Amino acid sequence: MAGASQKRAGVLGATGSVGQKFILLLAEHPDFELYKLGASSRSAGKSYKDAVKWRQTATIPESAQSLAVVECTTKEFADCDVVFSGLDADVAGDIEKDMFEHGLVVISNAKNYRREPTVPLVVPLVNTHHLDVIARKIESARSQGVEKPGYIICNSNCSTAGLVVPLAALSRAFGPISHVTVTTMQAISGAGFAPGVLGFDILDNVVPYISGEEEKLEWETAKIMGNIADDDSFAPLSDMLVSAQCNRVAVSDGHLECVSFKFVSERKPTIDQVKQALRDYKCEPQNLGCSSAPKQAIYVLEEPDRPQPRLDRMRDNGYAVSVGRIRPDTIFDFRFVVLSHNTVIGAAGSGILIAETLLGRGLL
Amino acid sequence: MAGASQKRAGVLGATGSVGQKFILLLAEHPDFELYKLGASSRSAGKSYKDAVKWRQTATIPESAQSLAVVECTTKEFADCDVVFSGLDADVAGDIEKDMFEHGLVVISNAKNYRREPTVPLVVPLVNTHHLDVIARKIESARSQGVEKPGYIICNSNCSTAGLVVPLAALSRAFGPISHVTVTTMQAISGAGFAPGVLGFDILDNVVPYISGEEEKLEWETAKIMGNIADDDSFAPLSDMLVSAQCNRVAVSDGHLECVSFKFVSERKPTIDQVKQALRDYKCEPQNLGCSSAPKQAIYVLEEPDRPQPRLDRMRDNGYAVSVGRIRPDTIFDFRFVVLSHNTVIGAAGSGILIAETLLGRGLL
Amino acid sequence: MAGASQKRAGVLGATGSVGQKFILLLAEHPDFELYKLGASSRSAGKSYKDAVKWRQTATIPESAQSLAVVECTTKEFADCDVVFSGLDADVAGDIEKDMFEHGLVVISNAKNYRREPTVPLVVPLVNTHHLDVIARKIESARSQGVEKPGYIICNSNCSTAGLVVPLAALSRAFGPISHVTVTTMQAISGAGFAPGVLGFDILDNVVPYISGEEEKLEWETAKIMGNIADDDSFAPLSDMLVSAQCNRVAVSDGHLECVSFKFVSERKPTIDQVKQALRDYKCEPQNLGCSSAPKQAIYVLEEPDRPQPRLDRMRDNGYAVSVGRIRPDTIFDFRFVVLSHNTVIGAAGSGILIAETLLGRGLL
Amino acid sequence: MAGASQKRAGVLGATGSVGQKFILLLAEHPDFELYKLGASSRSAGKSYKDAVKWRQTATIPESAQSLAVVECTTKEFADCDVVFSGLDADVAGDIEKDMFEHGLVVISNAKNYRREPTVPLVVPLVNTHHLDVIARKIESARSQGVEKPGYIICNSNCSTAGLVVPLAALSRAFGPISHVTVTTMQAISGAGFAPGVLGFDILDNVVPYISGEEEKLEWETAKIMGNIADDDSFAPLSDMLVSAQCNRVAVSDGHLECVSFKFVSERKPTIDQVKQALRDYKCEPQNLGCSSAPKQAIYVLEEPDRPQPRLDRMRDNGYAVSVGRIRPDTIFDFRFVVLSHNTVIGAAGSGILIAETLLGRGLL
Repeated sequence: MAGASQKRAGVLGATGSVGQKFILLLAEHPDFELYKLGASSRSAGKSYKDAVKWRQTATIPESAQSLAVVECTTKEFADCDVVFSGLDADVAGDIEKDMFEHGLVVISNAKNYRREPTVPLVVPLVNTHHLDVIARKIESARSQGVEKPGYIICNSNCSTAGLVVPLAALSRAFGPISHVTVTTMQAISGAGFAPGVLGFDILDNVVPYISGEEEKLEWETAKIMGNIADDDSFAPLSDMLVSAQCNRVAVSDGHLECVSFKFVSERKPTIDQVKQALRDYKCEPQNLGCSSAPKQAIYVLEEPDRPQPRLDRMRDNGYAVSVGRIRPDTIFDFRFVVLSHNTVIGAAGSGILIAETLLGRGLL
Repeated sequence: MAGASQKRAGVLGATGSVGQKFILLLAEHPDFELYKLGASSRSAGKSYKDAVKWRQTATIPESAQSLAVVECTTKEFADCDVVFSGLDADVAGDIEKDMFEHGLVVISNAKNYRREPTVPLVVPLVNTHHLDVIARKIESARSQGVEKPGYIICNSNCSTAGLVVPLAALSRAFGPISHVTVTTMQAISGAGFAPGVLGFDILDNVVPYISGEEEKLEWETAKIMGNIADDDSFAPLSDMLVSAQCNRVAVSDGHLECVSFKFVSERKPTIDQVKQALRDYKCEPQNLGCSSAPKQAIYVLEEPDRPQPRLDRMRDNGYAVSVGRIRPDTIFDFRFVVLSHNTVIGAAGSGILIAETLLGRGLL
Repeated sequence: MAGASQKRAGVLGATGSVGQKFILLLAEHPDFELYKLGASSRSAGKSYKDAVKWRQTATIPESAQSLAVVECTTKEFADCDVVFSGLDADVAGDIEKDMFEHGLVVISNAKNYRREPTVPLVVPLVNTHHLDVIARKIESARSQGVEKPGYIICNSNCSTAGLVVPLAALSRAFGPISHVTVTTMQAISGAGFAPGVLGFDILDNVVPYISGEEEKLEWETAKIMGNIADDDSFAPLSDMLVSAQCNRVAVSDGHLECVSFKFVSERKPTIDQVKQALRDYKCEPQNLGCSSAPKQAIYVLEEPDRPQPRLDRMRDNGYAVSVGRIRPDTIFDFRFVVLSHNTVIGAAGSGILIAETLLGRGLL
Repeated sequence: MAGASQKRAGVLGATGSVGQKFILLLAEHPDFELYKLGASSRSAGKSYKDAVKWRQTATIPESAQSLAVVECTTKEFADCDVVFSGLDADVAGDIEKDMFEHGLVVISNAKNYRREPTVPLVVPLVNTHHLDVIARKIESARSQGVEKPGYIICNSNCSTAGLVVPLAALSRAFGPISHVTVTTMQAISGAGFAPGVLGFDILDNVVPYISGEEEKLEWETAKIMGNIADDDSFAPLSDMLVSAQCNRVAVSDGHLECVSFKFVSERKPTIDQVKQALRDYKCEPQNLGCSSAPKQAIYVLEEPDRPQPRLDRMRDNGYAVSVGRIRPDTIFDFRFVVLSHNTVIGAAGSGILIAETLLGRGLL
């Protein structure tokens, strides 16, 4: 049941992989009311229950089951306080643009606007300070008489989210990082359901390629860890080299990444200092008391064979990342293994946490 | 049926994972006769068929089924021309030592003697020139009246075999390599059967740790690519830095490795030159016409998503390695993905090919 | 923290598969305090955290982490109100006997005493009326001055639990059943961890055999659905024929079973009546308000392709069973597919729910 | 290279799952020349290598790589001696009809004409005597001056092929069968590639439903084991009850089926007689010396846990079936587990063996 103070939330692409996760996370959410569900014209008009091929381990939330699915138009979503987009990239561009140009607040999981210099690309455990730009935009718009200015915020690619959290924590503690190599072993849920990864292609197999993924992992990391320029555009880090190799493995949820890296500074921390900095790391959603914020942003695991996707992906409901096997590298300074839940902190959950942060800042 | 000119082959650890593979490869072999099968005292006395829990996709070869299993003693194997050892490390040390000190030729998959400076550690597609030391030892022993001198040759760790083949090919073509990073995704057959990898640990999971594997991968590469010192000991490369991260994935056979590397020389080859050098690479077993030698040592795959374990591991019966996704690196010079069959060229098959090389050189 | 009124619970075999699940279920339990953890002498003396190779998706509960592991002796567990046994059958017999003969209340997952005519074999969603025998035993013992009489109650084999719940519901509604065929597809967690199912044996495979399973499934069903004889022994149904075929599949948790069956009566219910009877089914733990009792004992799924292990095993925390594909059979009356969580309602959870029922009846 | 006496073979649906298998089996075939490859208009005009997303473990045969893909029209395939169809059911109907009505010999894996009373539905290890009808049709057509009469023969559904082979063998030896229950665990390759089974749906899961499969398994068995009526139509067995339950499991290739059955006769064979009858079973392709005919039609396995898909599916190149766990049933007479390779004897290989039989009979 919707509380008096709840914000009305819309979900675009509600029948897809990311959309289903948005619905699960929003259904019981204290701050948001599941208000509009959008999908393709093929689904529009049906109840959500009839429109969706549900593939989550929890059952379809009651509050979603009988909601009527609508088309993804600005008009249909006009009275939403926030719109979460789980649209595929081939349709997200036009739909999202029309919405944020017409006064809607869009938080998108699609890649279309991530590279825009004026659009914040936010991993909520890392760079919510990039939302300052949004705050200034809103203020400026209101000073010009626009009551409800629209804008878009993008969350990152799923494999990026896992990588930048520990890198940001360490960079904050010990200064900038010059080199990063990362090899990912990514879950099949990251590919969505249409078409997704074919069982015949992943059973007893690894696919050492995900289209566009390595490039995204490399430049998104630079934008997320970068600064805000004087003109309120985002300035990707230019002096950090990132080399990524991406693989798809037979895991349902949870991206595992083997990382090695080097600090710029010659004054290297010890292993224990690295671990402590990761454990001590706090992010704005934690400080704001956001309801989905992880208790601990980064769990440091001491067992030699952890983190593992099946065992560790659900720490703090999938909003925390887990780092293990922290040890010296033979080429760079350190290496470690990081695990993140690709459909929570790496996708839908990231969008939710961005919205909670906006709410916590009074921007929504 | 054993041919007149066939060499008598013994297999130690015949009921284990590597032993079963030795038996499959030897059963139809033109050069070897399956002559003695050794296992623990628990199995000794039984027919092989009754002693083994057979887990191969081909059925137990007829020539092995009714062979009586014996204990792994020098006496039992005394009249073997060559003994292939698939023993576990905890028992291999003493058994193998007694054998090679008493005139037997041992080719071992165990790790126990790999680091010995005087023992060749051979990947047959790479460093059969290290067998020159054996040739000189035999000559020297015979000149001292020892008719049948014993010795041991080790094959490498399974994950090493895949890495060194393309590195050796490129090093031969373009000079030494200074930096190598490698992240492996290794098949569960590499862990053997006792205890092996538990299904509950690997289903819907990745285990980012294999005990001792990273160290082996780092130093074995240096020894295999190293030179023979003046005293006929082996001198590992000291100026090549290797950083390894090893993972176990839900794949039955076939180790996949993501590699990036840098040449010492500033005169870099082009991508096409790199591919051509890999395609042109030839090894001694090919030149000798060894019966198990791959037609092509290295297959260069142009499809963006290959090699894949399930599709490519059996190229040339598992004796070839496959390299794909050759592309520039953002930190070092190049990166690629290499696949090798861990129980063929990475274990038992490697031992067979070493024996064939000895035979081709007239040393057996 | 232990509440004033909590019962002290011991766990035997605490480091094993079933033991770990007992600990998870007891750690946050309102009625029980995790009081004693028993394991082999190899683990005794260590903290639980150090003794266990933890393999659950939730982390080790705080209340268990630093508990000292003790040996499984009657003396160590003497002041437990109830002892849950997750021991392997090869050691359970002697340990459990000594305990229940010396005044301890043992609820066991081991098979050793299941066939004893005087020992209740209880699936808590089905035959808690068999606990009447225990109530009478306690009363009789007390009347003879035994303050705290010991006894043992067994929970069923994991594959039995799933089968008997819908059969009992239908038998209650429409009279006795004459024929049952069942083919199971069982999860690997059912095999425990030592040795458990080897990854190499189950990846890309099905193993059509589980030692002793078919016999257990056939006779346990008869005992659980049977009556109490005049002498308070248990009288298995003698006129119901059960034919079972058991398979192990690549699923982590959740046993799926394809069932067809025939009622004795010629007056057959309709499909809709069958569904309604399953939906309406209530068991004693529900009526007593036991804290782990499922909201709904049996979920009837209407989607054509459900239940599925990954999607449906956690309904009501794994304490409910799911039935789908209810349709007429071409040989018997009806067929359906039933799913149950093998380590919850099929093992540890069943023990917990038995204990809650005893508590609800005032027997503990 | 095509031999002088080789028949020209066409493949319809050449880029699909079944088509790829046809190509693998035909490429090295002594009797057939890979002559025409047909696919959708999207692929037509491309070389096969460029048109196909190849997913087989063997590489694309040389003889297929540069063949130009054509559209699936009668004109394009007019000079083929035999056309193998791997088309999807939604397009197979019209294309195949046009071909067999215009003088082409079509052997189809599609389901469209299987139920036609005048079309033979053939499992080549079972009912090649149904091809007598084709022989008579050809003779009759030729007597009417039609030189090259067209016709269609269907192979069975993949799950049917495994079931009917042992049932036919036992029925031949011990008389008719009255009751059969079968529960299948089917490989994902059986679902093809477009869309096929999604990895997210099958990993750590079983799907207890395959659309239309149970019905097919039930009536196809009756037609294949049935007789030829006086008017040369096929008369399905009417007095054998078959009850099927079909499941999809995480296996790449190989359908496993748990079967129980009852003979009509009260004079039951012993277990040993059943095993012997299975071992002794011979089919026409064996008697004709067809090149793909299995050495042994049915392998009887004595190990308690066999057959297993990964270990046994490739017996006799996938043209044999394996039967294990033969034991008395508690309801019917006997039960057993049967394994068949769904893409060989259950699909493409079945088509090849039918063509070889036609050839062996002089009908092609």
